[in-house]
Amino acid sequence: MLTAKFDQLVKQLRILPGVGQKSAQRMALHLLTKKRPQGMALAQALDEAMRDIVECQRCHSFSDDAVCPLCQDPRRDDALLCVVETAADVMAIEQTAGYRGRYFVLGGHLSPIDGISADDLNIEQLVWRVKQEPVEELILATGTTVEGQTTAHFINEAVSRHVNKVTRLAQGVPMGGELEYLDSMTLGQAMQNRSFL
Amino acid sequence: MLTAKFDQLVKQLRILPGVGQKSAQRMALHLLTKKRPQGMALAQALDEAMRDIVECQRCHSFSDDAVCPLCQDPRRDDALLCVVETAADVMAIEQTAGYRGRYFVLGGHLSPIDGISADDLNIEQLVWRVKQEPVEELILATGTTVEGQTTAHFINEAVSRHVNKVTRLAQGVPMGGELEYLDSMTLGQAMQNRSFL
Repeated sequence: MLTAKFDQLVKQLRILPGVGQKSAQRMALHLLTKKRPQGMALAQALDEAMRDIVECQRCHSFSDDAVCPLCQDPRRDDALLCVVETAADVMAIEQTAGYRGRYFVLGGHLSPIDGISADDLNIEQLVWRVKQEPVEELILATGTTVEGQTTAHFINEAVSRHVNKVTRLAQGVPMGGELEYLDSMTLGQAMQNRSFL
Repeated sequence: MLTAKFDQLVKQLRILPGVGQKSAQRMALHLLTKKRPQGMALAQALDEAMRDIVECQRCHSFSDDAVCPLCQDPRRDDALLCVVETAADVMAIEQTAGYRGRYFVLGGHLSPIDGISADDLNIEQLVWRVKQEPVEELILATGTTVEGQTTAHFINEAVSRHVNKVTRLAQGVPMGGELEYLDSMTLGQAMQNRSFL
């Protein structure tokens, strides 16, 4: 609209999730008017991240090096392995600051409709790992969608001979949840899995 | 959280307006997982825009060259000059597709509280331009804030000897506006400036 380079910037900003034409224009104008050095720093950080961040060889999460900081950390408990769908899930669990074991990222969930089979996920590497290493508990922290649950059952079948304990995340009423607004599936689960006070 | 370069990217994404920690993480993960080439293209567009976009020598809007496409366009009417606060306003008016004159960007509005006086805006250049060039109508399209209106009055004083017609944007009920939700200042203005059907 204003200049070719401005239009190009707006167009490229729209690849960001949740950013439409109006927000992209606002971002571009904001950076150009007041934040050029920061805009350049963002360009550099983006370029470096896209080029240099690789998949960790051990857990398949994101890493700057061949093995990520979480896999390298000697204070982590090797006996606990938490299986998640994506690196975003690793980050979400890390933010709870309550888990001190290791992670393993599947790279998605089984989904026949989308043509994603076990070979498309890191399931073989996971089975290999629990065979080789002394994992005492495997926590299946896949999503509670149909695909996530199917994936969890599939993995359970594949690893049950090699791991003593296979667990999954508790399902129930979320914190701050008002019962009347909760879906009946969740409420039913919570009732079934009720525990002593 | 995951890796140093990831954290750096999230931190830099937060300089974008309306982007907090959560959105920045989501953006970074989205780009890393599925859109690396697009992420690199964004980095390049950002870098080029920050480095190469300059202020147009004639209208002070943004431009890739010394003079912007709008000032160069021979089909534009030189007799009409629309004065706005920022390049974003130029873009907003261009999107109406109803104006075919030229633009002049002040670079803000007068604001004694923020220490912005006439010398901080491009008012001198504007006066010089209307003295030199055959501008028949000067449209003061500054904001309808107190500062914007003050700026319009100040410019009117400065240019009135050199331009025949000085106009301002109509004030009234916005399109699709329901009267009962409109603020009384706007409604009062609309009543005062009522026109024949």
